[in-house]
Amino acid sequence: MSVTLSIDAMGGDHAPRMVVAGINRVVARHPDVRFLLFGRELVLRPMLDRFSRVRRVSEVRHTDDVVEPGAKPSAALRSGRSTSMRLAIEAVASGEAEGVVSAGNTGALMAMAKYVLRTLPGIDRPAIAGLGPTIRGQSVVLDLGANVECDAENLVQFAVMGEVFARKVLGLEQPSVGLLNVGEEHLKGNEAVRQAATILQDSNLAIRFHGFVEGNDIAEGTVDVVVTDGFTGNIALKSMEGTARLFTHILRQALRSSPFGRIGGLVATPALRAMRKRVDPRRYDGAMFLGLNGVCVKSHGGTDAIGFSNAIDVAIKLIADGVNEGIKHDYAQLRTSDPNPSTTQQVMNSR
Amino acid sequence: MSVTLSIDAMGGDHAPRMVVAGINRVVARHPDVRFLLFGRELVLRPMLDRFSRVRRVSEVRHTDDVVEPGAKPSAALRSGRSTSMRLAIEAVASGEAEGVVSAGNTGALMAMAKYVLRTLPGIDRPAIAGLGPTIRGQSVVLDLGANVECDAENLVQFAVMGEVFARKVLGLEQPSVGLLNVGEEHLKGNEAVRQAATILQDSNLAIRFHGFVEGNDIAEGTVDVVVTDGFTGNIALKSMEGTARLFTHILRQALRSSPFGRIGGLVATPALRAMRKRVDPRRYDGAMFLGLNGVCVKSHGGTDAIGFSNAIDVAIKLIADGVNEGIKHDYAQLRTSDPNPSTTQQVMNSR
Repeated sequence: MSVTLSIDAMGGDHAPRMVVAGINRVVARHPDVRFLLFGRELVLRPMLDRFSRVRRVSEVRHTDDVVEPGAKPSAALRSGRSTSMRLAIEAVASGEAEGVVSAGNTGALMAMAKYVLRTLPGIDRPAIAGLGPTIRGQSVVLDLGANVECDAENLVQFAVMGEVFARKVLGLEQPSVGLLNVGEEHLKGNEAVRQAATILQDSNLAIRFHGFVEGNDIAEGTVDVVVTDGFTGNIALKSMEGTARLFTHILRQALRSSPFGRIGGLVATPALRAMRKRVDPRRYDGAMFLGLNGVCVKSHGGTDAIGFSNAIDVAIKLIADGVNEGIKHDYAQLRTSDPNPSTTQQVMNSR
Repeated sequence: MSVTLSIDAMGGDHAPRMVVAGINRVVARHPDVRFLLFGRELVLRPMLDRFSRVRRVSEVRHTDDVVEPGAKPSAALRSGRSTSMRLAIEAVASGEAEGVVSAGNTGALMAMAKYVLRTLPGIDRPAIAGLGPTIRGQSVVLDLGANVECDAENLVQFAVMGEVFARKVLGLEQPSVGLLNVGEEHLKGNEAVRQAATILQDSNLAIRFHGFVEGNDIAEGTVDVVVTDGFTGNIALKSMEGTARLFTHILRQALRSSPFGRIGGLVATPALRAMRKRVDPRRYDGAMFLGLNGVCVKSHGGTDAIGFSNAIDVAIKLIADGVNEGIKHDYAQLRTSDPNPSTTQQVMNSR
């Protein structure tokens, strides 16, 4: 498949090194993909000379400017017009590239992507979606932090986007969608989730709506798509990351605490390695900005070449599977096929 | 120490069996504590005959009524006046008991406890607080679900209550307090957390306020007290529980997947058992309702005798350490010692 990706080569703690090394891994898997690398030519050139395979499929677009990791999104948007991040996004808007990947400042990337690419018709706000391991396989959670406060309509739009994603990218025929809440009963939770549930239940959406799910359902894989606001989603995801770290720490401590533990740990090394691989956060690198006119993927700020290459894979998959077209199509249909097209509006007005 | 606890003997999936067996464990540790058991005498009597140690320190108060696990809090409050839960709470209000423990319906317990016991002076809303393991030891998180929506003032009150708890019960001299948010920067998050941070920073509270913390900081133990609203806190806690279950599942699968894994797992059995013990949720059973005129502890609905006995221990500790008196004292002092007593109000009004 012939795809061109634009890359913010300067974003991330270990950029641009891990960017080039990451692309090197991708070339082996996707020899047809081409890359536009935005960043400092003087730094990038010598690296490309080392990775000749990357050089052959890449074009460097020089810029000295970068978005600082701690920059405020609004400031980056205002004064970062010649940064590697901004130029990489603009390559998608101009049609030179079909998607952009950056490991830089999340807030700045979202602000710039929203401004430059605009949202898809019918979508008020883009959401950050992420994949994670569950007991049953994997599931997608959104929003992970783009929208700190969400109303019911936002949550319904996230449900549509997440459903399309799970169908197209995870290949599920009828993915189930759950709304994250503090209990499964209809009367629990805040105004926004209760209203969103009413809309998802009453309106004629072609979504398999499971109802409310609780925090533990994320890792248990109760549903394929977990919908929540960006404040709760971000905190839930990071709480889970912290717990995974705590668990690894306690396991390591336990195995080191006694001779039997050490021996057992040694004998079981391959098994423990397989386990670590399954929960390796790098495997799930690549948060997707859904709802934009163009593919935009955020790699983890502290990522390495393996993680960054996975984020690039996510972008390639989003493009190949036509997720944005799917969202556009489904959202348009949802609005016209609803026998009572004002359901949503009615529910919203009844507040 | 001579303490009397009133027990909702009918609350919980495995009640009243695990209640009596749980008390049996407590008697060994605290021979001086006495119990008022509220519930069905016909069921309780034969159990007490089996556990004569429990019988000697318990008095049965018969009632046929129970609060159903799925009952709405408002309905339970209205029509549950002769339930074991309600009568157990009233024994605290009347001074017959110093604290109440129940593994029943959380919402009903909170509604009844709030109505019967009332909140402490200066506290608008009680919060549910829980202890959990961290990489550095343990920390307390509140609110875990009593208040779905919170304003800045609520969060500040939770901070005061959590700080007193950490000082009195965890024995920390100057516990650090963090506000859960989606980023550490001052400009991030919703209105309520930003305002609460301003109040905690500006006013003359004797609290060691760390600032914002993120989801991963809970398990990492970055601060001793994590303050958040009940919606976020409940989802964060349950997300962590789900992750712990996923991890255990993956570890078990990995160790079973190969002969070396199985042998290694066998050799390391004592180490793995020690690990399981450290993260055993029963060890952290006993969610505390802070901010009430009386001690009220909620045990997990699905708990067993071990978990229930730990919840009773929590109640005993709250009473022995005078946590409610501490909250009352600190809150009164906070209001009078503040050189600019209207700081809080000013911040609130500037919304």
